[in-house]
Amino acid sequence: MKLNINIKKKLADQWFNFLQSEIVNACQSIERKSGSKAVFKKKIWSKLKVSEGGGTSMILKNGKIFEKVGVNKSTVSGSFKKKFRPQIKGAVKSKGAYWASGVSFVAHMLNPKVPAIHFNTRFIVTADHWFGGGIDATPAINDKKEEKLIHGLLKQVCTNNKKNYKKLKKYCDEYFFLPHRNERRGIGGIFFDYEDKNWEKDFKFVREVGLVLINILETVINRKAKSKWNKNDKLQQLYKRGRYVEFNLLYDRGTKFGLNSGGNIDSIFMSLPPQAKWN
Amino acid sequence: MKLNINIKKKLADQWFNFLQSEIVNACQSIERKSGSKAVFKKKIWSKLKVSEGGGTSMILKNGKIFEKVGVNKSTVSGSFKKKFRPQIKGAVKSKGAYWASGVSFVAHMLNPKVPAIHFNTRFIVTADHWFGGGIDATPAINDKKEEKLIHGLLKQVCTNNKKNYKKLKKYCDEYFFLPHRNERRGIGGIFFDYEDKNWEKDFKFVREVGLVLINILETVINRKAKSKWNKNDKLQQLYKRGRYVEFNLLYDRGTKFGLNSGGNIDSIFMSLPPQAKWN
Repeated sequence: MKLNINIKKKLADQWFNFLQSEIVNACQSIERKSGSKAVFKKKIWSKLKVSEGGGTSMILKNGKIFEKVGVNKSTVSGSFKKKFRPQIKGAVKSKGAYWASGVSFVAHMLNPKVPAIHFNTRFIVTADHWFGGGIDATPAINDKKEEKLIHGLLKQVCTNNKKNYKKLKKYCDEYFFLPHRNERRGIGGIFFDYEDKNWEKDFKFVREVGLVLINILETVINRKAKSKWNKNDKLQQLYKRGRYVEFNLLYDRGTKFGLNSGGNIDSIFMSLPPQAKWN
Repeated sequence: MKLNINIKKKLADQWFNFLQSEIVNACQSIERKSGSKAVFKKKIWSKLKVSEGGGTSMILKNGKIFEKVGVNKSTVSGSFKKKFRPQIKGAVKSKGAYWASGVSFVAHMLNPKVPAIHFNTRFIVTADHWFGGGIDATPAINDKKEEKLIHGLLKQVCTNNKKNYKKLKKYCDEYFFLPHRNERRGIGGIFFDYEDKNWEKDFKFVREVGLVLINILETVINRKAKSKWNKNDKLQQLYKRGRYVEFNLLYDRGTKFGLNSGGNIDSIFMSLPPQAKWN
C-alpha cells in the first residue's frame, strides 16, 4: 500500500512525540539515579502564525550528569523566503511551501570525561519528502574504546536496516568539520539526509536511530560519569565547547533552517553549551 | 594634489601600525596602573602565500582590568572567490583582487560593570577604495550616564570632521542588531563604511576615530573599574557575552571577510570573549 503524504506526516509527527518522551524519561532516570534532583522543564512555543505549528522543548540544567540536556520536538510548516529556497530540496518547486517535523537532542555533560552527544531525526516535506538525521559524539578528552563502542552501536543499526554505515559515517565526518580550523568537531557518528528510497524502510531506520541514542547515552554515561576529573579537564571541555559554538553558529544547517523558518530561538539555540571558553 | 593609490595604501598601512602601538601602550599602561603584571603577547602571522601579507596580533589575557584585550593590525591582499565577490564593493570589477589594511580591537573587561568595547578602522581597495570602521560599547549592566559620555565623545569626533553623527549612530544601531532575538548587541556607537568622498578628510576622520578609542577606554575604565560587583553581575556579563558570540559568528561582516580572505583564525576570533554562557 502506498501511503499518502498526509498519513506519512501524521505517522512521523506521532513517532517524534513518542521519541521525545522516551528520551526525556531515559535522561530523567539517569539523572535521578545519580542522586540529583534536577528535573526537565517544559516549554511550549508556537510560530507567530499559530496555524504554522510549533514545538515543545524539554530542558534539564545543572544536573549531576547533564550540565545541560535538551530534547526538542517540533512540527512546523510555512513558506521559505525566496532567497532561501534554492538551499532546500524541492522548495523552489513547492514555491517555498514546507512541512517539517523532528526531534533534536543535545547533551553537554558535567563530567568533562563524558562526551557531548548530539542527535536529531526529522521528516521534511516540500515538493519532495525525505528523512534526515544522525548521531555524533564530541569528547573533550579522547578515548579510543569509547569511540569504538559508539561506532559499533551505530554500525549495527545501519546493518540491521541495510544502510551503508561507511557512507553515513563519512557524511558525518564531512558535515561536522570546521574548515576554518581544519578540525573535526568530534569523533563523528552517522549522518544522513534526503533518505527517500522506501518510506516504510526509511521510517523504520529513523525510529531505530532514535532508540539507539538512548543506548549510546547509557553506555557512555555508565562507563565514565563517575570518573574523577580536575580543573584542567574541565578547561579542555570548555575550549572544546567553544568549537561547538563556532560550528553551530557558522555552519550548522539546522540552525540556518531554524532561523529561516521562524523557529523558536530558545529551541534553535538549545544546542549551545551552557558555558564555553575561547583562547 | 591627488594622491595615487599606492601612496594611499602606504599612508594607511603606516597609520594603522602606529595606531596599533598607541592602543597597546594605552592598554598596557592602564593594566600596569591597576597593579597587574599581565602583559601583551605578540603573534605575527602571514597568509599561506607570504606575498599576500599578514598581520600582528597583540593580546593580553587575565589582567585586572582586561579579562581579554586584543589589538590586531593586518595588511593583506589577494583575490576573493567568485561567490564572495558580489558582497564586496568593486570586487566584481576588480576580478576579485583586493588589498586591505586595518586595526581591530576588542576589550572584554574583568569587571562586569565596565562595558566591552569594540573598535576597528580599515582601508579597503578593490576597483574602488574606501575607509570603514567604528566604535561601539556593550555593557552587561546599563548605565545611562556612561552611554551619554561615550556617545558625547563620538559625536564630537564626527562634528570636528563634518561627519553626520546621527547617520553613523543609526548605521551602528542597525548593524549591531541580533534579528533572531530582536535585540541590540549593546548601546551602539558609530559605524561607517564606504567613506570615499575626500580621501584626505576621510583619512583624518579615521585617525581621530582611532585616537578617541583611547579616550573612551580611559573614561569608562576610570569611572568603574574599581566598582564592586557580585556573582550575579558576572553571570549577567557572561550571558551578554553569549549574545556577543552569536552576533560575531552569525552576522559580523569582519568575521566573514576574515574567513573569506584567508585570514588568521586566532586574529579573526580574537573578538570572541574568553568565556560566555547560554541559558
